[in-house]
Amino acid sequence: MFDKGIYIRRRATLIERMASCAPEGKRGIAIFIGNADAPAQYRDNAYAFRQDSTWLYYFGIDLQGYAAIIDLDSAGQTIYADDVDIDDVIWSGPQPSVRSIAESVGVPCSAPAAAFDEAVRAAAAKGREVHFIPPSRYYNTLRLRNLSLDPSKSSLSLVKAIISMRLVKEDVEIEQMDDACDIGYRMHSLGRSLVKVGAREQDIAGAMDGYTIQKGWGVSFPTILTQHGETLHLHGHTGIVVPGRLMLIDAGAENNMHYPSDFTRTYPTGGKFTKKQRDIYEIVCRANEAAFSLTKPGVAYRDVHLAVEKILLEGLRDLGLVRGNLDDMVDCGICGMFMPHGLGHNIGLDVHDMEDLGENLVGYDPDQKRAPRMGLGSLRMARRLVPGNVISDEPGIYFIPALIGKWKEEGTGRDFVNYAALEDYYDFGGIRLEDDVLVTADGARRLGHERLPIFPDDVEAAMAAD
Amino acid sequence: MFDKGIYIRRRATLIERMASCAPEGKRGIAIFIGNADAPAQYRDNAYAFRQDSTWLYYFGIDLQGYAAIIDLDSAGQTIYADDVDIDDVIWSGPQPSVRSIAESVGVPCSAPAAAFDEAVRAAAAKGREVHFIPPSRYYNTLRLRNLSLDPSKSSLSLVKAIISMRLVKEDVEIEQMDDACDIGYRMHSLGRSLVKVGAREQDIAGAMDGYTIQKGWGVSFPTILTQHGETLHLHGHTGIVVPGRLMLIDAGAENNMHYPSDFTRTYPTGGKFTKKQRDIYEIVCRANEAAFSLTKPGVAYRDVHLAVEKILLEGLRDLGLVRGNLDDMVDCGICGMFMPHGLGHNIGLDVHDMEDLGENLVGYDPDQKRAPRMGLGSLRMARRLVPGNVISDEPGIYFIPALIGKWKEEGTGRDFVNYAALEDYYDFGGIRLEDDVLVTADGARRLGHERLPIFPDDVEAAMAAD
Repeated sequence: MFDKGIYIRRRATLIERMASCAPEGKRGIAIFIGNADAPAQYRDNAYAFRQDSTWLYYFGIDLQGYAAIIDLDSAGQTIYADDVDIDDVIWSGPQPSVRSIAESVGVPCSAPAAAFDEAVRAAAAKGREVHFIPPSRYYNTLRLRNLSLDPSKSSLSLVKAIISMRLVKEDVEIEQMDDACDIGYRMHSLGRSLVKVGAREQDIAGAMDGYTIQKGWGVSFPTILTQHGETLHLHGHTGIVVPGRLMLIDAGAENNMHYPSDFTRTYPTGGKFTKKQRDIYEIVCRANEAAFSLTKPGVAYRDVHLAVEKILLEGLRDLGLVRGNLDDMVDCGICGMFMPHGLGHNIGLDVHDMEDLGENLVGYDPDQKRAPRMGLGSLRMARRLVPGNVISDEPGIYFIPALIGKWKEEGTGRDFVNYAALEDYYDFGGIRLEDDVLVTADGARRLGHERLPIFPDDVEAAMAAD
Repeated sequence: MFDKGIYIRRRATLIERMASCAPEGKRGIAIFIGNADAPAQYRDNAYAFRQDSTWLYYFGIDLQGYAAIIDLDSAGQTIYADDVDIDDVIWSGPQPSVRSIAESVGVPCSAPAAAFDEAVRAAAAKGREVHFIPPSRYYNTLRLRNLSLDPSKSSLSLVKAIISMRLVKEDVEIEQMDDACDIGYRMHSLGRSLVKVGAREQDIAGAMDGYTIQKGWGVSFPTILTQHGETLHLHGHTGIVVPGRLMLIDAGAENNMHYPSDFTRTYPTGGKFTKKQRDIYEIVCRANEAAFSLTKPGVAYRDVHLAVEKILLEGLRDLGLVRGNLDDMVDCGICGMFMPHGLGHNIGLDVHDMEDLGENLVGYDPDQKRAPRMGLGSLRMARRLVPGNVISDEPGIYFIPALIGKWKEEGTGRDFVNYAALEDYYDFGGIRLEDDVLVTADGARRLGHERLPIFPDDVEAAMAAD
């Protein structure tokens, strides 16, 4: 937990930002529901507890069964939870009182859990506005319904106020993210050292996941480790490492303070790139570097995405896989066939930061509209960058037989795409290269104290040394 | 997945057992809702997918978003899920059709997901009985509510029929449980080798957890690894291994077929038991051995629990910590202060098998009533044993300062308990020793091909060799 002053200040800022939404006396209350354990099989056999990120941001308490109310008119704040009884002590050990836990994050008032429901109902009965964020779990959905609140009617003003704060990382957060990236660096280094022909994918992924549990909360998202990189989020690890393939590893660690890292590297399974692999790899690597160099305050990340599309298409054109004018190709969305995803997303307490609050509200400025086309349409972060933003820089090139086939059949992009040449790439797989980037006052900095080898010679040297 | 014949036979048996509940034409339908991904932070960042165990038992399909209906009158069976589209292929890879997946578990009929809701509503509208099991997750609760079904009104006849089947493990299941125990054996061996003074608990637990991800689905429950064994289910791993303590490790692995193991061992942190530790350890060890030797068909596990209480009390009496007649002490529930939990539980697709279906229905014969007193009252498995039952054998002795203090203050057990002598044990911790046991035709067998060292000399020798 951070020092209590941090939470006090954050809540004060939130109240301040909500003040503009309604005249005094009409602002209502903001309610926050911390997570409960998520059952894996049944109630008492749960997954590792993960607190709600918005709760963590404003209240810090990493325990289940908590809730809170901020009175936006009086600025009064109360934390609701039950003290432990003797049974809890036997099964879970002694714990501080709710009162002292609340005080540790600067909330002087606390009350039993049941009083939360009463307080929310009482406020609603008085016609006061009850602000809440969209539920991120089925549990919260049920809690809201039990309070006679419609889970789909979350508060836009509260959501926007929270986004405005969480998008800009504080120094204490950046320190945590550097730490998470350091764990992620070592997690990836371990994984790379195990990519040997004949190894079981599950053994590699499990060792990486285990490392994150040793050093932090665990994985920041389910590890992607696949020789079929063309499937963007493949979570199965049933294969054996075979020679001549590309092993794509997209994985990250969440540290004990719940800040994540999110890196992707792609390795030649035998330790050496083939000419064909290296040609594609170098394009993606160039795009990753270019994106970083373009990242600075005032630049819209949407434009960085578009610049990357152009670099990728240029490289593919050099290889004869596409043809024509680069700007025309970008305009026609040709890159979407090779990179159907966006260049990056915000990272914060969530690895896709605040995705539960609404992807467009988080990633788009009010004057930006999401494009409908493939690739750019999947871009999660388009905003004009400001210092304190943390984003991923993750270009990729994939050869997805089903997608190529579909486009070809429909005649999409037939003026630009060399479908005949692409036939040689149906079993290529995919390449993605991802770093985590902090926008600074005058540019950008990659998070973490060391950078995973990314240039092809460095990758081969690292694999030889592993 | 097992061979489809297994699922076909299980469903036929279920239909048969449900036939006695109502005359033909009045039996209604049984509905089964497979699990969806459980969000960790937000919908698309989920915990590792774990299928519902009852679903796995009857339908085997280890994918999310599935549901099924068994018509108990016509014996008709349909599986409901949606085929993947091009977006799914890009993000998650190509997949077989729902029709072929359904056929692989012997269900000839399949339909889109939305048809499930329609079919359930239509049956309910016709006044047919809709049988369902209690929801084990918030997701299932919501699904039932959305079907206008009251989640609290699950079908007792369906629950009883399922329990009657799942309690008796088939040979194919026992094979899987041996496998899970073998993974658990190696997981624990790794853990033991890392119990060295100065080590971080989180490093040990994380390495163990990682191993289960390498070799199976993951942990079968959150790993308990603590130098405060007196707290029964302590999941924090924030300590450093200090000399002179007892490290209690209660952990298990779930294999790729979702069968679990569940072992507990307790180690002297410096590799050698002190005299005081060994005295208590030997009592627990004796109780574990005795429980195993008493385990055979026809014996009520409740009686084995009571026999264990007597053994524990006898050992404690020899040490001067309690005094008086052993049977009187058992009758007065004195053992509950030292072992507040039951001797064991059923193990199957769930580590506490079918806990979601109701602990008393699973663990108690119709003529057995759960005792109100501490210890015996927490016993999860009391039934008369039959071949094919798989149970845990896990006696323990704990010195829980808060509980001792409470009893002493209330005067509970003052005729038997030597509270003055107990003062020397306030910082002792706790010891638990647990194996997984299969009831055979004429006795019992410990599952797994090797047994973790349990006798004190063997434990010390193993730690010296680690």
